[in-house]
Amino acid sequence: MVQQVASFAAGEWIAPGSGARPIYSAISGKVIAEAGGGALDFAQMLDFGKSTGGPALRAMGFHERAAMLKALALYLQERREALYDISYDTGATLGDHKFDIDGGIGTLFVFSSKGRREMPDGQIYLDGGLERFGRAGSFMGQHVAVPLQGIAVHINAFNFPLWGMLEKLAPTLLAGVPAIVKPATATSYVTELAVRMILESGILPDGALQFIAGGTGDLLDRLGGQDVVSFTGSAETGNSLRARPNLLENAVRFVAEQDSLNASILGPDVAPGSPAFDIFIKEAHREMTVKAGQKCTAIRRIFAPEAHLPAVIEALSARLAATPVGDPRDKATRMGALVSAGQKADVLAKAAIIGEEAERVFGDPDDFALAGNVSRDAFLPPMLFHCADPDAASKVHATEAFGPVSTVMPYRDLDHAIALANRGGGSLVASIVTESGEVARHAVLNAGPSHGRLYFNNPASAPEATGHGAPMPHMIHGGPGRAGGGEELGGVRGVLHYMQRVAVQGSPDLLTAIGKRWVPGAAEVTGPAHPFTRHYDDLAIGETLHTASREITLDDIEHFARFTGDTFYAHMDEAAAAANPFFPGRVAHGYLLLSFAAGLFVQPDPGPVLANTGLDNLRFMKPVVPGEHLSVRLTVKEKTRRTDSYGEVRWHVTLYNQDDEVVAEYELLTMNAYR
Amino acid sequence: MVQQVASFAAGEWIAPGSGARPIYSAISGKVIAEAGGGALDFAQMLDFGKSTGGPALRAMGFHERAAMLKALALYLQERREALYDISYDTGATLGDHKFDIDGGIGTLFVFSSKGRREMPDGQIYLDGGLERFGRAGSFMGQHVAVPLQGIAVHINAFNFPLWGMLEKLAPTLLAGVPAIVKPATATSYVTELAVRMILESGILPDGALQFIAGGTGDLLDRLGGQDVVSFTGSAETGNSLRARPNLLENAVRFVAEQDSLNASILGPDVAPGSPAFDIFIKEAHREMTVKAGQKCTAIRRIFAPEAHLPAVIEALSARLAATPVGDPRDKATRMGALVSAGQKADVLAKAAIIGEEAERVFGDPDDFALAGNVSRDAFLPPMLFHCADPDAASKVHATEAFGPVSTVMPYRDLDHAIALANRGGGSLVASIVTESGEVARHAVLNAGPSHGRLYFNNPASAPEATGHGAPMPHMIHGGPGRAGGGEELGGVRGVLHYMQRVAVQGSPDLLTAIGKRWVPGAAEVTGPAHPFTRHYDDLAIGETLHTASREITLDDIEHFARFTGDTFYAHMDEAAAAANPFFPGRVAHGYLLLSFAAGLFVQPDPGPVLANTGLDNLRFMKPVVPGEHLSVRLTVKEKTRRTDSYGEVRWHVTLYNQDDEVVAEYELLTMNAYR
Repeated sequence: MVQQVASFAAGEWIAPGSGARPIYSAISGKVIAEAGGGALDFAQMLDFGKSTGGPALRAMGFHERAAMLKALALYLQERREALYDISYDTGATLGDHKFDIDGGIGTLFVFSSKGRREMPDGQIYLDGGLERFGRAGSFMGQHVAVPLQGIAVHINAFNFPLWGMLEKLAPTLLAGVPAIVKPATATSYVTELAVRMILESGILPDGALQFIAGGTGDLLDRLGGQDVVSFTGSAETGNSLRARPNLLENAVRFVAEQDSLNASILGPDVAPGSPAFDIFIKEAHREMTVKAGQKCTAIRRIFAPEAHLPAVIEALSARLAATPVGDPRDKATRMGALVSAGQKADVLAKAAIIGEEAERVFGDPDDFALAGNVSRDAFLPPMLFHCADPDAASKVHATEAFGPVSTVMPYRDLDHAIALANRGGGSLVASIVTESGEVARHAVLNAGPSHGRLYFNNPASAPEATGHGAPMPHMIHGGPGRAGGGEELGGVRGVLHYMQRVAVQGSPDLLTAIGKRWVPGAAEVTGPAHPFTRHYDDLAIGETLHTASREITLDDIEHFARFTGDTFYAHMDEAAAAANPFFPGRVAHGYLLLSFAAGLFVQPDPGPVLANTGLDNLRFMKPVVPGEHLSVRLTVKEKTRRTDSYGEVRWHVTLYNQDDEVVAEYELLTMNAYR
Repeated sequence: MVQQVASFAAGEWIAPGSGARPIYSAISGKVIAEAGGGALDFAQMLDFGKSTGGPALRAMGFHERAAMLKALALYLQERREALYDISYDTGATLGDHKFDIDGGIGTLFVFSSKGRREMPDGQIYLDGGLERFGRAGSFMGQHVAVPLQGIAVHINAFNFPLWGMLEKLAPTLLAGVPAIVKPATATSYVTELAVRMILESGILPDGALQFIAGGTGDLLDRLGGQDVVSFTGSAETGNSLRARPNLLENAVRFVAEQDSLNASILGPDVAPGSPAFDIFIKEAHREMTVKAGQKCTAIRRIFAPEAHLPAVIEALSARLAATPVGDPRDKATRMGALVSAGQKADVLAKAAIIGEEAERVFGDPDDFALAGNVSRDAFLPPMLFHCADPDAASKVHATEAFGPVSTVMPYRDLDHAIALANRGGGSLVASIVTESGEVARHAVLNAGPSHGRLYFNNPASAPEATGHGAPMPHMIHGGPGRAGGGEELGGVRGVLHYMQRVAVQGSPDLLTAIGKRWVPGAAEVTGPAHPFTRHYDDLAIGETLHTASREITLDDIEHFARFTGDTFYAHMDEAAAAANPFFPGRVAHGYLLLSFAAGLFVQPDPGPVLANTGLDNLRFMKPVVPGEHLSVRLTVKEKTRRTDSYGEVRWHVTLYNQDDEVVAEYELLTMNAYR
């Protein structure tokens, strides 16, 4: 039975039309699905997403959307066997599925966690700190980010039918923006199954996710300044898309992740036979063979010190020779097929170009062992090339054979290796296996400008290292120049691509109302009782306690010094203290001030305040000398729900002396029970 | 004498060529300068900048480059009278010069200050916190930013010949990237004078600044993935530049700041006759008349509640009527000329388009008073239009008359006002005069997505408010959609446009070496003596003290409670404490732990540690019960030079119990004397 890959547009599943294109199994070479052909109403899709999905998502806060992502991850995790099953026909092994399917689900989990931990329990994200323009602080600035009111069009590559969708969908939905997903046709049947699962789950609001199986027609020509295009694919396609006049005229954001001639460098400090050398070979082998090398982050260029080049070729060839190629459904298989016969032909064509400057030292596409009852149409062996003169070469630095193909090249010294790595003209990632901090720092300064990610590995990090080729949701994924100049992922950074950063300027009162975080200078709210006796729900932002004052005596200071053991001379010796540029004479300990401040504001009886969990941004502004008086202002700065029974309250704490001068300021964190 | 505006290319001043174009005085209409005509060798300019300026700038750290900006600001400040003098012929008044010249110099000061305070005393900027991938923490992630290895091409508009250059130059140079500045020809004679001053100062390294008076020829076609174009000007020019195939193919960063139909909204809570109403009128008047309305941030659309529209027109007209237009050199003049007769013609053409949908209610270009002995060629009066049906209108929302022209329109309610403001299709700034926090928050959520900046003003903020139209260096300047989709300024955000963000992954040791900030898990360095006895210069990153341990007794807790007054039940009442979800029973005060920790690591005698100035990121991880023992690990995390005699040391402090479990962790700040 041939799967009819349908589109999901404006709330309806729409089957392929009469001109649908066949999709072939990478294993059997037979038609297994059909997609496209129909004509979708893109104006209607955009309208539906913007009028239905957008408002529904924006009505939620970041934490609600984070919870939605987690629910989605759990839902898909329970159904991943079905996703594995359907994915074999793409040529991928079970190991490959873990990158695609488990990796995609993992990305949802990470963004859910980032949303809860690093974004506010509300709808406006505060980006950076307050900016002050005048002495009085009556007019200040705060950058915020709010969701765009348009739609995100995701155009994905064939190699990761699930991860490719979810790595874009997670930040988009967390931002509060609906998406239209357009996967590459070759593996769209896998994506379609996942989309069906997601829609059946009922976890997303209507209009948050639409799906195009087939072409995008005039969709991009209909986008405006509130829309975003996120593209993964070839530089050729990407550049033709981003040149569309409509996108340029409306400054439509275009996040591109394109070609990349990723490099891996064997550090100058690493010799054959060492554990670090083995790590280098393992990484190179993995990047050549996982997904049959069809990864935008795979290692295309391998650089080793001249003297170690033969050892690298030998060790890597031995490992490649022990890599069974065959039916991806077979557990013994270590490398499956390319996605299609067409992709195989493209890889061979690119390999031929590389072959003009390099010699093939491992893997013969016309003669290799293939296990299982499969069609040879889409299979290739891993192929290793050796380019002896990488300075004279140009094609090896510019030709991405998107398959199990890599080229080994010699370098003279670290700067030479970096210069060669940079000849990729902008890459997603470069890796360096080294144990030297100096090598690493030099590489960051000099190779960093040409790479979106620099991955360092060695025996100390190997047990937890995530792999040269694995984009982690925490870290940005993208690269300058040839790689498209975009950035995806990177935690909250990735979410901000779907939001507008706004420079907000105004009075402390207005900034407090906007950000739901109390800004110094804003009104202080007087509550009906001591704020520590009030539940989380009842506390108002700005609710303030002014304490009584307390004298700090010389006896207090001496007593505290003896009790704690902190007999620093600034507290104990008048002459020595006065010689210090910061102090007029003996001063109170900073920790004495903090402790007395707590004594002034703490409410002793059991109540809603459960614990003091931390303290941020403490600055001592003015020393306190014996005989001065201390008082405290304690203000509810921000509230964040944390569990079903309590939330975090951030208090703005200001310590004053008897002249109302600020002697210290900090933020205090407590956990407070709900009513 | 006609000034020959020269270019500065590859270290040489190059006079205009034979086809040079005349530049006319906006006051007299006479030719005052000539520019362009010659053929510059752009390949040589790029090569010179990249081979000379780039390496010299990158060899410096952020703090050195910040000091360079400050020196430049002081140098120009001393010479600003000469810059004022030459600027009158652009049509600008002394008040206008303050925006352009003082504003430009102020931008240098702010970036200098941001560089010193918010960027490291080194060459690699750490962007955000550590990312952990595994439990052991043996492999972690850190985003960094490093300077691009290319060149920044700055294409500036005519209206701010000095600010326009300096607002782009400050973040570029702070990033460590050389620049080629191309001002608009009409006012390039002002910019050229400033460039001569900057070069004569000797403050910048060779190759850091080049200058094009005239066309850019094939310059943009020669740029690559390490280069940046920062463009300010019309959408038409911007869109044609950014469509160049070379820029698209190499994903050359293109920061654009283009057309903008900025709006100002009289809040629904503000009535005529109130102080807030007066503020609204004052802002609108200023934006119409400063620089004769030739500001990309000027208010083009004024929205007021239907009922208050007549009052707005009346009050604004009265103020405009009291605005003397004339010779900008005359102190009584409040509005000078447009930059040229051509610009005047363009404004009149655009005003005619607006006139198709709106009625002119103030200012007649064919009949207005003009003071002084000037040519009328480039002068206009302020012109106010009234559009009665802004819903039906389209041209008033899309036509930027770049002069003293604005249109007043009525709105029904706040959502209507926001919808109308958003019809600009993406703007640099919108302002709202309101005293309501709810209005402000609603505006941020709903107008924010279409605006780069939202400016709120009212009587509380007016004394320090910086003005609707003034881009502050602290805040981003740019806007989505029609405004170009770019961002400039915004403090460190603006610097990062000229740097590559790199996701660095590796072991704690390598991350420490790269960022020069100690990462937990990295090697601990054992110094020759207690670290508090060692000078700033001598302390190594990672230098660590492990203290003795100390028991915490119930007596200690009770004593501390009585002494400080902090008798919170979790410290005093076993049963009540045990009922708390966070505690097993009575526990030590957090501040007791901090105080005892200091007692364990402080060295009492005078020495290089001058003061404890603050504490960051304190988290209590595990409660400490009576009878447990406390010990401390104190590690040098980061060092930052602050003055000529001392620098800041950030210490990573970890408190352990007797089982080596972490009970608290924080960062401590001290000021330490140099050797």
